[in-house]
Amino acid sequence: MSPKITTELLKQLRQAMRNPKYVQEPVQAYIVPSGDAHQSEYIAPCDCRRAFISGFDGSAGTAIVTEQHAAMWTDGRYFLQAAQQMDNNWTLMKMGLKDTPTQEDWLVSVLPEGSKVGVDPFIIPADQWKRMSKALKSAGHDLVPVKENLIDTIWVDCPQRPCKPLITLDLNYTGVSWRDKIVALRSKMDERNVLWFVVTALDEVAWLFNLRGSDVEYNPVFFAYAVIGMNTIRLFIDGDRVMDPAVREHLQLDSNLEPEFRIQVVPYGSILAELQAVSAGLSPKDKVWLSDKASYALTEAIPKAYRYLTPYTPICIAKAVKNASETEGMRRAHIKDAVALCELFNWLEKEVVPKGTVTEIIAADKAEAFRSQQKDFVELSFATISSTGPNGAIIHYKPVPETNRTLSVNEIYLLDSGAQYKDGTTDVTRTMHFGTPSAYEKECFTYVLKGHIAVSAAIFPNGTKGHLLDSFARSALWDCGLDYLHGTGHGVGSFLNVHEGPCGISYKTFADEPLEAGMVVSDEPGYYEDGSFGIRIENVVLVIPAETKYNFKNRGSLTFEPLTLVPIQTKMIDVNLLTPKERHWVNDYHQKCREVIGAELERQGRREALQWLLRETEPLTGQ
Amino acid sequence: MSPKITTELLKQLRQAMRNPKYVQEPVQAYIVPSGDAHQSEYIAPCDCRRAFISGFDGSAGTAIVTEQHAAMWTDGRYFLQAAQQMDNNWTLMKMGLKDTPTQEDWLVSVLPEGSKVGVDPFIIPADQWKRMSKALKSAGHDLVPVKENLIDTIWVDCPQRPCKPLITLDLNYTGVSWRDKIVALRSKMDERNVLWFVVTALDEVAWLFNLRGSDVEYNPVFFAYAVIGMNTIRLFIDGDRVMDPAVREHLQLDSNLEPEFRIQVVPYGSILAELQAVSAGLSPKDKVWLSDKASYALTEAIPKAYRYLTPYTPICIAKAVKNASETEGMRRAHIKDAVALCELFNWLEKEVVPKGTVTEIIAADKAEAFRSQQKDFVELSFATISSTGPNGAIIHYKPVPETNRTLSVNEIYLLDSGAQYKDGTTDVTRTMHFGTPSAYEKECFTYVLKGHIAVSAAIFPNGTKGHLLDSFARSALWDCGLDYLHGTGHGVGSFLNVHEGPCGISYKTFADEPLEAGMVVSDEPGYYEDGSFGIRIENVVLVIPAETKYNFKNRGSLTFEPLTLVPIQTKMIDVNLLTPKERHWVNDYHQKCREVIGAELERQGRREALQWLLRETEPLTGQ
Repeated sequence: MSPKITTELLKQLRQAMRNPKYVQEPVQAYIVPSGDAHQSEYIAPCDCRRAFISGFDGSAGTAIVTEQHAAMWTDGRYFLQAAQQMDNNWTLMKMGLKDTPTQEDWLVSVLPEGSKVGVDPFIIPADQWKRMSKALKSAGHDLVPVKENLIDTIWVDCPQRPCKPLITLDLNYTGVSWRDKIVALRSKMDERNVLWFVVTALDEVAWLFNLRGSDVEYNPVFFAYAVIGMNTIRLFIDGDRVMDPAVREHLQLDSNLEPEFRIQVVPYGSILAELQAVSAGLSPKDKVWLSDKASYALTEAIPKAYRYLTPYTPICIAKAVKNASETEGMRRAHIKDAVALCELFNWLEKEVVPKGTVTEIIAADKAEAFRSQQKDFVELSFATISSTGPNGAIIHYKPVPETNRTLSVNEIYLLDSGAQYKDGTTDVTRTMHFGTPSAYEKECFTYVLKGHIAVSAAIFPNGTKGHLLDSFARSALWDCGLDYLHGTGHGVGSFLNVHEGPCGISYKTFADEPLEAGMVVSDEPGYYEDGSFGIRIENVVLVIPAETKYNFKNRGSLTFEPLTLVPIQTKMIDVNLLTPKERHWVNDYHQKCREVIGAELERQGRREALQWLLRETEPLTGQ
Repeated sequence: MSPKITTELLKQLRQAMRNPKYVQEPVQAYIVPSGDAHQSEYIAPCDCRRAFISGFDGSAGTAIVTEQHAAMWTDGRYFLQAAQQMDNNWTLMKMGLKDTPTQEDWLVSVLPEGSKVGVDPFIIPADQWKRMSKALKSAGHDLVPVKENLIDTIWVDCPQRPCKPLITLDLNYTGVSWRDKIVALRSKMDERNVLWFVVTALDEVAWLFNLRGSDVEYNPVFFAYAVIGMNTIRLFIDGDRVMDPAVREHLQLDSNLEPEFRIQVVPYGSILAELQAVSAGLSPKDKVWLSDKASYALTEAIPKAYRYLTPYTPICIAKAVKNASETEGMRRAHIKDAVALCELFNWLEKEVVPKGTVTEIIAADKAEAFRSQQKDFVELSFATISSTGPNGAIIHYKPVPETNRTLSVNEIYLLDSGAQYKDGTTDVTRTMHFGTPSAYEKECFTYVLKGHIAVSAAIFPNGTKGHLLDSFARSALWDCGLDYLHGTGHGVGSFLNVHEGPCGISYKTFADEPLEAGMVVSDEPGYYEDGSFGIRIENVVLVIPAETKYNFKNRGSLTFEPLTLVPIQTKMIDVNLLTPKERHWVNDYHQKCREVIGAELERQGRREALQWLLRETEPLTGQ
């Protein structure tokens, strides 16, 4: 992968930073965050401004450009990738390492006295604005909103904002109608004495209205905002998407509904004016509720006295706890996904071992092809990480022609992939060897597996936050002086974003909401040896009630049920390193794969993949 | 224990809350925090205002009194004790439970519109003031400083502030001279471009000057502040304590020192005027460094633009990492402490079993008597928790005549005790049965032991924060649906406070500093069955470098070495529940007790206690 040459672009950006057409006074630094106006993690091509200016296209990172410097902050998943994609104009700031300065500290260290730091107020979340503005102010600088996005001013061939058709989801998929979701939301608003609720996150809008879209690759969302009052529902959305009869019927736009359920459809771009109008009509004790991660521009549109900000909205929390229909949908999706992967791995074994003609890209495409044969397949849920040998150590690697390696019997192959089905979202990682793994590779794989099992089999009291489980995933690695530089798990949406809050399993978070039965998270410890190999074992798991001997004095217990049912390659396991309990876990898991996925492979008449499944799920025998 | 009758006191306090002599305008609520002007956890009798007004004398709690209500917030350690010590005027607010309101939320829910909430600005830490003031303001109320402490106005027989002689510590104990500590502090100040440093915590003043006191029971500190400039050292301290020739010599008050090491001794009460004077002399870019937990009054004395606040001061962090002299001192202290406890437990076995005449108080006194026979013993490090049967479930129980139970062969006995020696501070908990424990008691004890071992034997990379280890202590309990409502460990001072920051092991903290080799913490999981028994197993452990197979790519590994070397009662262990690794840990630990404590018992000619030690450290045999 050769780095993007950014010398000319940085020159143009620095000119824009001084151009009175865009800025009242020159800004000495300009911040380019990752996100879009909805603080999405995955963004549309027109919003990939940070990638455009730097070349680094990982999912997380913030660029800051000053007159003299250009610096990029990103986390452990992306250290290698960012270093490869950026040219010498850029300094990589490795977040999470002790000596890496924060963006604020770095700015203070490089800026001349009394500097102005610019940022697009629609892109920066209000909480980040506040923190950064305060830090800069205390050092004598100013954070200033620059209305016109300076990247857009130099991005001559910037793609258009997408505006694709909508998908309606009926009760079989969602379990709850949008009307009932509005009722529940209004009751939460009532509890907190809030008059208006502003929905800014794209997946929250999609979930609330039981609609899906395809404006952003991998995330079935569409560009929209919503404003909910006690008697008002306003949906801010562009194009003639709501002219589709199925959408009109779904939203009951042409029915004679009670006024409080009538949806007013208004242009996407009118949200700021709407918030200003709403604010103008408020009385002293009225409140407007929005996420503290909403953009600074929208947050500022509501005078401070009226704002009610929370880190997680009631929609975010309700969305995370899957109901029975959603849970059943997730199960179905994971069964279909496992069928596709059994086909893939069977095919890989047949192709890689004798022929050696399968590249990372071919394998990824083949995985997509098998998935697309399954019912209700919509698209992938993220860019497939198909990586062999040293590429496996690039945690969020995506194969491109320049880096594409051929799978062989000599290297570990890591496949992290998932799909969107109309009934659910999947995300699974398996690490395999098509030849004979070394003792060291097996040792590392087995520690990762022990960590995976430790989380998956953990029992914990109701009210426990996910971050308290993170160390369970690391303990076996730690004992030997190994670790991995990413969290252990993230929330997973139901035919929605593959990463969603408010729960997760990571040493980095503390403000996560407690795990509840019905939540769905990933369990994905790993180990990465730079320049050599990567190992990760990931299942999506459902939080379920656990039965314990003493049940925490009726406080209740929780544990996890794996939704992902794909064999874990036993060839990679050093059985001597497993405890009997861990060995039983693997055997029970493989028995369930046989029963559930075996039956589906049978039903779909996929005999060869079934034989592969049976071979791969032979029980481990004890020491 | 009968509750304190507070009806009359509350009436007087409410009168004071309206008395124009003390308040410009009446306050509708008055907050009585736990602390003193130094935010100490343990406080002098004259500072026990919250206990005076409510009757509840646990170490943590905040009282709030309004015209109609009186409410007390405390944590899980004190739920039972607070309920027993307070009368019906008081509502207990159980912190950590889901439905318990925060102080701010509760105030907002009970106060009439536009209320004033008063608090002593010297007692409330600045960070708490800020949070509470903001929350109250956003609900239309005001937090106001009330200069005269309103409790003091109604406390007719309030004791005098203590002013006891000082103890000087030489290099054999401290390893570093106060001059070198000042040099190191100034270098930290220089790094951050700070002109002045204000030392507000009592243990930080004591540590910095290598002095100790006895103004506060159990904590060898003295009432003082210090202000350090680049060429100035001012010590704010009362009485003729610095007239003692040993102290004058130690501080070199009469030597002709370089000006930057000359200590100016000034009255304790002049600190506020000093800070105002310092602030008046500052230039625009100058900074004054103090803890964000310093009192609101002192923080406010420094104009905002000049303040440099951090959660942990450089003294706090330096103090936590024990040097070789301090570590050796801690080892010596723990050996002496173990000798005393072997004597005690041997004596208890002889007295309790046949005679049944030993009460909780007698046992606690006997423990103190044995400790006081040891060299360099100064005092206890906290009130001994000597509790049998149901009293053991009161987590921070202290036996008093009303609750005093007799130890018997039918109940579990829990002893949590420790001492201050001139060379170190100890804190140890052992749980014993003098008859035959039930299967359930052994089961619970064994889970607690498994948790204790999981933390003590944990290996983790450099840079790991203690809170990430907390779940290791709970895992075995969680598996069976059991838990405990307190953290797993706290930092321990070196002949200083038995609880100190910035490290610890608790699910409740997130802002703890990473563990470093040389830090000392406790490892004390427990299990409590209300009305029946309490179990806790506590060692003080030293963070040491660990040797691992792969050493985290030279990032380095850490683990713990137990400093406490007191047998863990094997009679209470259900060996079938231990893994071979855990069994070996117990046997290795007991082997070390035999070697180290056995030799010292031998040296001190304590033959009978030695026999007891040998009996109690017989190796466990496998399943």
